[in-house]
Amino acid sequence: MSLSASLSGFPEWTPAQRIVEQQVLDRLRRTFELYGFSSLETRAVEPLDQLLRKGETSKEVYTLHRLQAAEGEEEASLGLHFDLTVPFARYVLENAGRLQFPFRRYQIQKVWRGEKPQEGRYREFLQADIDIVDRDTLPPHYEAEIPLVIGDALRSLPIPAVKIMVNNRKLCEGFYLGLGLAEPDEVLRTVDKLDKIGPDRVAEVLMNAGASDAQAKAVLALAEIRSSDASFEAAVRGLGVEHPLLDEGVAELAAVVETAREHAPGLVEATLKIARGLDYYTGTVYETELAGYERYGSICSGGRYDNLASAGKDVFPGVGISIGVSRLLGLLFAQNAISASRPVPTAVLVALWNEEERPVSNRVAAALRSRGIATEVAPVPAKLGKQIRYAERRGIPYVWFPANGDIPDQVKDIRSGEQVAADSAGWNPPAEDMAPTLQ
Amino acid sequence: MSLSASLSGFPEWTPAQRIVEQQVLDRLRRTFELYGFSSLETRAVEPLDQLLRKGETSKEVYTLHRLQAAEGEEEASLGLHFDLTVPFARYVLENAGRLQFPFRRYQIQKVWRGEKPQEGRYREFLQADIDIVDRDTLPPHYEAEIPLVIGDALRSLPIPAVKIMVNNRKLCEGFYLGLGLAEPDEVLRTVDKLDKIGPDRVAEVLMNAGASDAQAKAVLALAEIRSSDASFEAAVRGLGVEHPLLDEGVAELAAVVETAREHAPGLVEATLKIARGLDYYTGTVYETELAGYERYGSICSGGRYDNLASAGKDVFPGVGISIGVSRLLGLLFAQNAISASRPVPTAVLVALWNEEERPVSNRVAAALRSRGIATEVAPVPAKLGKQIRYAERRGIPYVWFPANGDIPDQVKDIRSGEQVAADSAGWNPPAEDMAPTLQ
Repeated sequence: MSLSASLSGFPEWTPAQRIVEQQVLDRLRRTFELYGFSSLETRAVEPLDQLLRKGETSKEVYTLHRLQAAEGEEEASLGLHFDLTVPFARYVLENAGRLQFPFRRYQIQKVWRGEKPQEGRYREFLQADIDIVDRDTLPPHYEAEIPLVIGDALRSLPIPAVKIMVNNRKLCEGFYLGLGLAEPDEVLRTVDKLDKIGPDRVAEVLMNAGASDAQAKAVLALAEIRSSDASFEAAVRGLGVEHPLLDEGVAELAAVVETAREHAPGLVEATLKIARGLDYYTGTVYETELAGYERYGSICSGGRYDNLASAGKDVFPGVGISIGVSRLLGLLFAQNAISASRPVPTAVLVALWNEEERPVSNRVAAALRSRGIATEVAPVPAKLGKQIRYAERRGIPYVWFPANGDIPDQVKDIRSGEQVAADSAGWNPPAEDMAPTLQ
Repeated sequence: MSLSASLSGFPEWTPAQRIVEQQVLDRLRRTFELYGFSSLETRAVEPLDQLLRKGETSKEVYTLHRLQAAEGEEEASLGLHFDLTVPFARYVLENAGRLQFPFRRYQIQKVWRGEKPQEGRYREFLQADIDIVDRDTLPPHYEAEIPLVIGDALRSLPIPAVKIMVNNRKLCEGFYLGLGLAEPDEVLRTVDKLDKIGPDRVAEVLMNAGASDAQAKAVLALAEIRSSDASFEAAVRGLGVEHPLLDEGVAELAAVVETAREHAPGLVEATLKIARGLDYYTGTVYETELAGYERYGSICSGGRYDNLASAGKDVFPGVGISIGVSRLLGLLFAQNAISASRPVPTAVLVALWNEEERPVSNRVAAALRSRGIATEVAPVPAKLGKQIRYAERRGIPYVWFPANGDIPDQVKDIRSGEQVAADSAGWNPPAEDMAPTLQ
């Protein structure tokens, strides 16, 4: 049984897949809270002008209309949020007087984009975001903290190894400026296409925009640098470019890489080709590769932004990252690479001798539930073989037979066939059978 | 700090309120799973024709449009779901071949209604539904099970006492037919207004529709019957009306009340005025009163439906109930009747001697987190008094001072002022301080 999408772009998991999703979310939440992030949910809708502030994304917005709005009725222009960053920025501005800064929040919600659906791209999908925002200034050490949180969160899941690739906008922009390129944003957007169009075409685009052959070569040489420690710095210096912004970016990136290396060797890599298309990033940027799924692109991305939330003289710089949960699960489900140990929460099915004795079976079920054992009672007093087959079909591992005449209560592990006398006030399944587990 | 709604009808909880909401949802989920219900999430959108099948609710639907839909582009007519029953019925029909029946599912999701917002009525709100559907026929014992689940779920919360009021459509319709009233649905809809318009007006409406004085009086007499055991049956019989459908309804209602009475005395009451306006119910119906909040109406309602999900000769009768989670929490928050023991997940703030020694503080934090203790590191190396006040303001109960020269690691309970030497590899806060708790 696999996922279905009777409406293109709107996937729905099966009950078994949903168990996986819930347990994944439980683990993400657990890690986020261990780092002191507060949970937040914002409404699904935002005023359209909020959503359209970043012109690039306007084409993806779903707008909302009341079907029965009265003739001539003034309606607020509302759209569904397409990410969790824009609503969060709005929430911070609205509630700034009531929040404690730096404010650490996580937010796990559906978002909607009216894009063309394709593999791993949905119109409705779940994101899990963490952000830290501060008032006026945000110390750069938070840029080093984000990969620790995400590393712990993703490594708590039974998924392939993840690598967080990190770069710094200041480093790139300083380098481009030091090289004498006057439009660093333009260069960055071109470098962002490197994996898609290749180095030759990138050089061509840069030179068409006025760069010299040497400048284009230097830009590509910078983009080739990768290291899992601070040694990227020597490689950058070797290119012989100087600029104060470059120095700042190098120092910040070194701090991110070194902090991560102490915490979790192999997790983070300075990867100087990472650009991130969205132009609101101003410092560290993150992308994440899943081993074996590299061709599907980043499953978790983000960065530092200084200008997303501001109102008059109040500014709230922040840093954040977003896990594409639906995207990640969709890829893994398609490869049968993640599953739950059973497809239902139920551990025990209590058999039923006859409909009149349902209260007897109900009492057994209540006793088991009172000790945390998920239990159902058989739907109908069918023949025992049929009741056992029902449990089998549902994926329930144990069938309980209430006392019958001289025969005391018994419980059967229907996988091994083992059947033992048991007391509903004391019997427990082995720990691994208490609840479905991720595997 | 209280909830905000900068957009009328779209409430957003504060981070502290969100902790309450999450823990409430955790407990509901726990109970639902103990009874073997599988979690399900359906997409937020449904084809408009699905949503409009029940004409009554059409005025509440939000429709969706892609802002940048191409000129002349054919677009599916989509709307946001206004409840979780219609999408669930659609899901069951679509996936019938892959589900095991009886299918027990719970579903906790936002729903949207374009209604006029008012106290306790939102345009976006969270519902928690459980339903059991079967193929072809659904045994009536499931109608008796639903109140047990909901009773356990609601009584796991620190909220005022709940009373589940139960009635049965067959009982009422049989009674009305036995009385000689030809339009039992019409009578039911009138009785549904009893609390709003009073008995005199109900009698008037009934008589205007052709009922005799005696018939109207009998209808009202039936609606007055309440009992927390099967004694309602004698009261019904005392009215001298006979009909086979009445007998069926009485027997089913007696089973519901008696099953609940054994499980949880005082939880369920046969309340024969309960009608439920929606006309798809065909058997047991439920409403729920919260002590002290009766005037706000039912916080949890549902019933049995035989005809909601059908396709050709396949029918899937079901029974379900829905907790209005946003509504319930909104009422309780407004009275400060529920809260969390602290407003953040964080148990410990690790102080910072100076920025260079951040790795020292990070190591303490990592050691505490590895044992499940939610920990943050101070944002900046301010004076210690200022770092402690930061923890105080955030509501973090403990501040950790990493070893400093000859002084070993120490931890301070900032509520009592007590400060003790501690080892980050072994120290634990008291169990009640590990995580915020509901109170």
